[in-house]
Amino acid sequence: MPDTETTSVRPAILPTIASPRDLDALSLVETERLAGEIRDTLCNLVSSRSAHFASNLGVVELCLALHQTFDFLSDRLIWDTGHQIYPHKLVTGRFAQFEGIRTKGGLMGYPNPVESDYDLFVTGHAGSSVATALGLASGDDLLRAHENRWTVAVIGDGAFPSGVVYEALNNAKAHGRRLLIVLNDNKMSICPRVGGVADYLDRLRISRVYNGAKTEVQRILQQIPLLGDPTERLLAQVKEAAKVGLHGGMFFEDLGLRYFGPIDGHNIGLMRKYLRMCQKSDGPILLHVVTEKGHGFQPAAEDPVTFHAPPQFRRDVDRVVEMKKGGSRTYTHAASEAIHEALGGNDRATVLTAAMCQGNKLEKLRDDFPTRFFDTGICEAHAVCFAAGQAKVGMRPIVDIYSTFLQRAFDHIFQEVSLQDLPVTFMLDRGGLAGPDGPTHHGVFDLSYMRIFPNMVVMAPGDEHDLRQMLPFALKHDHPCSVRYPKATAVTVEGERTPLELGRAEVLRHGADGAILCGGALLPECLAAADRLAEQGVAMTVVNARFVKPLDTQTILPLIRDLPLIVTVEEGALAGGFGSAVLEAAADAGVNTHHVRRLGIPDSYVEHGEREELLSGLGLDAAGVTRTCQELSSRTVPV
Amino acid sequence: MPDTETTSVRPAILPTIASPRDLDALSLVETERLAGEIRDTLCNLVSSRSAHFASNLGVVELCLALHQTFDFLSDRLIWDTGHQIYPHKLVTGRFAQFEGIRTKGGLMGYPNPVESDYDLFVTGHAGSSVATALGLASGDDLLRAHENRWTVAVIGDGAFPSGVVYEALNNAKAHGRRLLIVLNDNKMSICPRVGGVADYLDRLRISRVYNGAKTEVQRILQQIPLLGDPTERLLAQVKEAAKVGLHGGMFFEDLGLRYFGPIDGHNIGLMRKYLRMCQKSDGPILLHVVTEKGHGFQPAAEDPVTFHAPPQFRRDVDRVVEMKKGGSRTYTHAASEAIHEALGGNDRATVLTAAMCQGNKLEKLRDDFPTRFFDTGICEAHAVCFAAGQAKVGMRPIVDIYSTFLQRAFDHIFQEVSLQDLPVTFMLDRGGLAGPDGPTHHGVFDLSYMRIFPNMVVMAPGDEHDLRQMLPFALKHDHPCSVRYPKATAVTVEGERTPLELGRAEVLRHGADGAILCGGALLPECLAAADRLAEQGVAMTVVNARFVKPLDTQTILPLIRDLPLIVTVEEGALAGGFGSAVLEAAADAGVNTHHVRRLGIPDSYVEHGEREELLSGLGLDAAGVTRTCQELSSRTVPV
Repeated sequence: MPDTETTSVRPAILPTIASPRDLDALSLVETERLAGEIRDTLCNLVSSRSAHFASNLGVVELCLALHQTFDFLSDRLIWDTGHQIYPHKLVTGRFAQFEGIRTKGGLMGYPNPVESDYDLFVTGHAGSSVATALGLASGDDLLRAHENRWTVAVIGDGAFPSGVVYEALNNAKAHGRRLLIVLNDNKMSICPRVGGVADYLDRLRISRVYNGAKTEVQRILQQIPLLGDPTERLLAQVKEAAKVGLHGGMFFEDLGLRYFGPIDGHNIGLMRKYLRMCQKSDGPILLHVVTEKGHGFQPAAEDPVTFHAPPQFRRDVDRVVEMKKGGSRTYTHAASEAIHEALGGNDRATVLTAAMCQGNKLEKLRDDFPTRFFDTGICEAHAVCFAAGQAKVGMRPIVDIYSTFLQRAFDHIFQEVSLQDLPVTFMLDRGGLAGPDGPTHHGVFDLSYMRIFPNMVVMAPGDEHDLRQMLPFALKHDHPCSVRYPKATAVTVEGERTPLELGRAEVLRHGADGAILCGGALLPECLAAADRLAEQGVAMTVVNARFVKPLDTQTILPLIRDLPLIVTVEEGALAGGFGSAVLEAAADAGVNTHHVRRLGIPDSYVEHGEREELLSGLGLDAAGVTRTCQELSSRTVPV
Repeated sequence: MPDTETTSVRPAILPTIASPRDLDALSLVETERLAGEIRDTLCNLVSSRSAHFASNLGVVELCLALHQTFDFLSDRLIWDTGHQIYPHKLVTGRFAQFEGIRTKGGLMGYPNPVESDYDLFVTGHAGSSVATALGLASGDDLLRAHENRWTVAVIGDGAFPSGVVYEALNNAKAHGRRLLIVLNDNKMSICPRVGGVADYLDRLRISRVYNGAKTEVQRILQQIPLLGDPTERLLAQVKEAAKVGLHGGMFFEDLGLRYFGPIDGHNIGLMRKYLRMCQKSDGPILLHVVTEKGHGFQPAAEDPVTFHAPPQFRRDVDRVVEMKKGGSRTYTHAASEAIHEALGGNDRATVLTAAMCQGNKLEKLRDDFPTRFFDTGICEAHAVCFAAGQAKVGMRPIVDIYSTFLQRAFDHIFQEVSLQDLPVTFMLDRGGLAGPDGPTHHGVFDLSYMRIFPNMVVMAPGDEHDLRQMLPFALKHDHPCSVRYPKATAVTVEGERTPLELGRAEVLRHGADGAILCGGALLPECLAAADRLAEQGVAMTVVNARFVKPLDTQTILPLIRDLPLIVTVEEGALAGGFGSAVLEAAADAGVNTHHVRRLGIPDSYVEHGEREELLSGLGLDAAGVTRTCQELSSRTVPV
């Protein structure tokens, strides 16, 4: 009886591909069949779990053409951003493990050198591929290793406006003799693209002059009468200008790159022809490949935003039968609602995102406040400077960016915001462990790095109740503020709550046996731990710190002084984080801290997996906090 | 008797300019005379102290033309990078205080909103002006404040390749209706420029087609016979292409900007004409102005690198009579020599700088190792990614960048270096208080931010002896390393020294009354404090920590456990820095820290001044460390 849930037939070719070298024996027809099998495998995957989808469907042919043209054990390949790596994983010996992708212990959803020699860099943040590729090429040159070794960076048009791409292009001429940049132009970032570069690529695609037409133009140019010097010189200029003008990609040529394209990124034969031509040329070369995000699965091609990383769905041939409901309400939803309220209540409030309109759930905001919603594209540095400019003239910008991606703007948080003491509010989504996306997406450094900037107020809501209060507070506070919250189901702690006040914590449980100081949204875990401990007769105080900076020393220091056991809890790096802030305050006040234990992210990278299982592994769930308190409580002597 | 040291005559016009509005009454001839007076004032200044010079000489006319065209109390003006702000300060009411510029309590050497409403942002890091200008314009638009208000960003060609500029240009079209970007093209960064954008600007300047020629070309185009459709359509394309090709600046036009220029940036009349034309147009506009760095003072124009921020010199008309000798040997020299030795002894070592060849004293390195010296221009993000690429293939890149400027690459230190665990060595110059350049240049955050990255070894040499050992150590260590050192005279601590070993500190004095734990180059101050205290009968242990990470807990924790008084000393932010690392280690080991005092940079921005006086003001010199120890020692009771 046929499987009614999927329409896939068992792949025939894909299981035989142990390495890209097995692709060499395939005919074009077989390669195209393989592309279908890869697509089918991708479709099956997303029926079992949420994963990056549309971008992977878009690069199947490109991936095959690249591997059939180059040998990436000798040549070098970097996939920028990295979430379009699935077809590459499938043809580089990882088909058998593919089902476990993005699960704890399974394949990473991004390139990972630990998995395969075909993966060079763990990527996840956009735009750095061209620069690293240049470094690879430069190192190879210096080592005189493989004269004809090519370095290939595949970068999407969404990542292309990142500043580091331009910095690299600006440096490409000097080190890019064997550098090929494949611009994978699918007319999309994760959200639809914005900005001048996007417009330019549109013009390149629309106004491209095909080879035939080019020849015709040249024939006309030959007919232009020559009028003697100096007009002849001018005419030569005219001809040159005409040629260059007809030839798209002058923007890139201006930077010293050779430009080819645009070509159809779903035509394997054509791409192989162009790639071979590039191989025979001198670089740096930019090959403009046009692909369709979601290609081959109609619903994804029609709605690539939803299908960027869709929830689980069942399909029937090319039709979605059932898509898993959105699931629980998350802190991202809560933040989006809070921002919506803020913009509704304050004409001066604006919101900025860096291509994360969908990820940050800002669609309704964008529609309801079109003039005060700004999507800068993947340009976090610009977003922060832009916000600073707005703040300078009296607006109240809210910069809504994932914690880990805001790192791109570190220096601008310093110079444009903190140093100028401007009222910019940072909403840091995915503050903590981001789950299946793994270490490039975990936001574990923000408490440590935000805390070092003078003038900055650093808030970590204990629950949704806090978050909802913190944004209005930030908009009234005349200085920079940051609010960080995890990628998790929004929780509201029950019971009577104290209103939010600058630098004041909230004591939620009173107990004389010790205190749990919680810096952020692990608060429910801390309360649960206190409950378990209470059942065992250990009475713990639980503090919802709310402010990592300024820290509520008035509440916290007496607890450290008087109680025999203190545990700080945070979903962030232990180095320099909330717990360190507590230790600093205690030392500054001459208060002993031998009985303080800090729980948080240790000094190593946390792999991918479900947030809950990762937290559990780090002892950051209720059980872990309970365990730590028990261990300490059995050891402590009264101070 | 005439002053033989300078040739200046007392300025006649400049003292009468209380605000830019006083410029309106000046004729062109008077304005040109004023330009001369400003230049003379600049020349006199540098005979009394080191200051930014050549860049200021270059923008005198541009500054006057801007203020005569716009009203920058209503319009907005941002000077990118900011070290070319002097003429602007002179005509915005700060002539009387000008002599004290860059001294403690005097004018800042960069724009400073505290000084004047004509200064909007403290700038010092390059490239952010366009993005902030767009933010200002966007905010003004939303507030419907001054329909015709223009926002002007003046940015040098050296800053132009910074990634954030491109991100801003990419977003300019949407918000730049009244945005004017003045590209101040002096063919220089601080060092000569590199890269594709520089080449492009060269081509624009060299191949520019003057208006006359343009007309001639158009005449020729008219004569081309029309050949009927579809050829006619093609011909239209040829014409269009020719026009665009003749029109320089297509690169910018591709991004959605209007391009004017290049024009002579020392011709006030011409600039005013163009600026007025821009005022009447719709933006975003890029006006390409060509200036000469050092213009009007021949030695500076001929050698703008030396005269970027020259040592004090005496002059005679346009001749340098005597230039102050280079002064003492600094840590920068020591680092440069160490890098030179490293490259000499290791074929795999390379060195990268981001336009700071001169600041980092790398000229000899560049000349002796041309293939392994890389200047990326002001592109720190690219530099770090590029280094990661080189490291990946087996090279040993040394990234030599000022501490504060490396902040621009924070996210790439994370993703491309720390996450991949690649052996890139960061040499952080100006780690600590940079002196007269002030808060944009102080490098006070690096210990805090480097320490949070897994795999990173964070070193802070106590003296030159350490620094010279640390670089070879780093090149042998198979993981990322950073070495930070101050802008200060290199000192070598006398006496027997222990060899450098990973994670091991060095005990330089033994004493039972307390310990000074020094994390970096304030070591001589700490030793001097110990000597003073010894004279008073207080015997202090002095520890040269060397490693901020991994911290030598084996040496440090017993001292904290056993001694009654511990002072940590660092030239960096107290939040999350070396002292915090000590507190963390102690708490993790259950060791009390009520008797630990941390000395360092508090949670506010330190203004400009001589490093020594700034340190003294913060209690970070020998006297301050002594004082802290005395205070604590009088209070402490044995533990």
